[in-house]
Amino acid sequence: MKIAQVSPLFESVPPKAYGGTERVVSYLTEALVAMGHDVTLYASGDSVTGARLVPVVEHSLRLDPRQPDWLTWHTIMLDRVFESAPSFDVIHFHVDFLHFPMVRRCKRPCVTTLHGRLDLPDLAPLFRHFCEQPVVSISDSQREPLPWAHWCATVHHGLPTDLYRLNPEPGRYFAFVGRVSPEKRIDRAIEIAIACDMPLRIAAKIDPADRLYFDRQIKPLLGHPLVRFVGEIGESEKNEFIGGARALLFPIDWPEPFGLVMIEALACGTPVISYSCGSAPEVLEHGITGFVVHDQQQAIAAAREIDRIDRRGCRQAFERRFTAETMAARYLEVYRELVDPH
Amino acid sequence: MKIAQVSPLFESVPPKAYGGTERVVSYLTEALVAMGHDVTLYASGDSVTGARLVPVVEHSLRLDPRQPDWLTWHTIMLDRVFESAPSFDVIHFHVDFLHFPMVRRCKRPCVTTLHGRLDLPDLAPLFRHFCEQPVVSISDSQREPLPWAHWCATVHHGLPTDLYRLNPEPGRYFAFVGRVSPEKRIDRAIEIAIACDMPLRIAAKIDPADRLYFDRQIKPLLGHPLVRFVGEIGESEKNEFIGGARALLFPIDWPEPFGLVMIEALACGTPVISYSCGSAPEVLEHGITGFVVHDQQQAIAAAREIDRIDRRGCRQAFERRFTAETMAARYLEVYRELVDPH
Repeated sequence: MKIAQVSPLFESVPPKAYGGTERVVSYLTEALVAMGHDVTLYASGDSVTGARLVPVVEHSLRLDPRQPDWLTWHTIMLDRVFESAPSFDVIHFHVDFLHFPMVRRCKRPCVTTLHGRLDLPDLAPLFRHFCEQPVVSISDSQREPLPWAHWCATVHHGLPTDLYRLNPEPGRYFAFVGRVSPEKRIDRAIEIAIACDMPLRIAAKIDPADRLYFDRQIKPLLGHPLVRFVGEIGESEKNEFIGGARALLFPIDWPEPFGLVMIEALACGTPVISYSCGSAPEVLEHGITGFVVHDQQQAIAAAREIDRIDRRGCRQAFERRFTAETMAARYLEVYRELVDPH
Repeated sequence: MKIAQVSPLFESVPPKAYGGTERVVSYLTEALVAMGHDVTLYASGDSVTGARLVPVVEHSLRLDPRQPDWLTWHTIMLDRVFESAPSFDVIHFHVDFLHFPMVRRCKRPCVTTLHGRLDLPDLAPLFRHFCEQPVVSISDSQREPLPWAHWCATVHHGLPTDLYRLNPEPGRYFAFVGRVSPEKRIDRAIEIAIACDMPLRIAAKIDPADRLYFDRQIKPLLGHPLVRFVGEIGESEKNEFIGGARALLFPIDWPEPFGLVMIEALACGTPVISYSCGSAPEVLEHGITGFVVHDQQQAIAAAREIDRIDRRGCRQAFERRFTAETMAARYLEVYRELVDPH
């Protein structure tokens, strides 16, 4: 199939550092290329891909010191995509909703994966207005605020099979990986670890917006002898850091649309203890790949029983449900249905 | 003619308080209606117009305490505009560039007035990409950074003829009207007034972004007995405030694309002393409606000679060049040329 992938331009594809959406676009693109499809990737010029790259802007926008105007470059990108629309069988957007008015007037099949949270108040009138636009959710739970949108499928994210390897013999610590922000609840993770008398290693990025929260709410908790704050970690360190942990603690307090770090943990064989928010109950199999809990008491009990979880079973669940190949195969079903509806 | 006017949604049309673009859209729309044209106005639902209003969003966005997402509502607006495109002879956009990819694929004539400064670095690649889009400048000087854009015309802003009335007998003070921001140079205005031993009344809005600048740079200057800071003034107070002044001081330090307050002053018969930046040399006739100066020495000399300027001549210049009727007539020429190119 001739497929266009339209990525945000904030990060390169794949991102050099943090950047969830562009990372998933990369995994999907490369999986489709590996399956023999003819893929064109609209992305920043510093992207690296086996697909045909259309470099919309020289450098990805977020880290460009000139602080480029994002809307300018995304507008140019949309124009270039629709200029070439007749040459694609299907166009797959990962850029929220900016393209909806164009898609309405485009004769080629288009589909949009919604990567963000959908419980923001202005999205309801938007999706009522554009109610016929084919959209893909990244978890069933993500759909809840907009049940009337034209959902084609839920396609869970996937990782390349060999990106992480199973670590069957973990060290003696729990891991937390994520942003330092109130809804990620590092404070809960610290409480769980201390209650279990287990060391906690925290790999976390501090966005400028979260600096005050970190200084006031989290920093005072880091003095405990069981707690170690290691800052932001790169892709290459993740396998060792997460794979070495007895469990990943994911005590979130918001409707996480997917939570990539959960499947990164499973790929390493590391079980996940998550609060029952957003996608967690879909991604995790309670008692098999970790525990889905509702309060700190349950979380602490689960953490104490974590060795009952078979790490090989976690890896197997990853291989069965969350590889890039599985994701690409699901998207191909979506594309085929759009190109040739039954 | 069947004309669509597409306004930003940040302020109502006309705005309840500050808001340059929406104010000009209102004056243009009402003038076109008065001339017998069939005008449809896309704007926020709290707008007031003699045209057919399409209320895209209930409340204008800037002052809505729910802080609506501006891009959502502008995207919905564009879709609604292009849905009805076949029913218009011409569509006139005032919303920057979001619509350019749609305009490229629209069969009806479209034109965009660029209301902002154009010397921002990302606009060059944008206008190179969309180089065929018909655009109108609000002053010739505004075009300078983008000479290769497809300029159809310069159309200066205009005000309803009877919005302000001539005050032939001003009081003994100079006036400053504008935002408190570094490029507006209140400090220069204060220096000019003090050098002339003339009271200065400052009507200025302090945006949150400019609060620090105000506190550090301007506040210390306000203690002088000749200087009076009156804060923000409403539309109804402007005639008295500006019309009562011996001169409007406009000692700007940036490429002001138009500077509506200059023609407000002329409408009151008040001459303007402006630095030679942006549109000022086009709007003012040096020695007739005020003075265009290059430094403080010239500004002070001009301020001392301000009584040489005939206030009736200022009002006449306004009536000749800067009424809403003149503006609407110029836009009609642009529309006609687009509908039926020679």
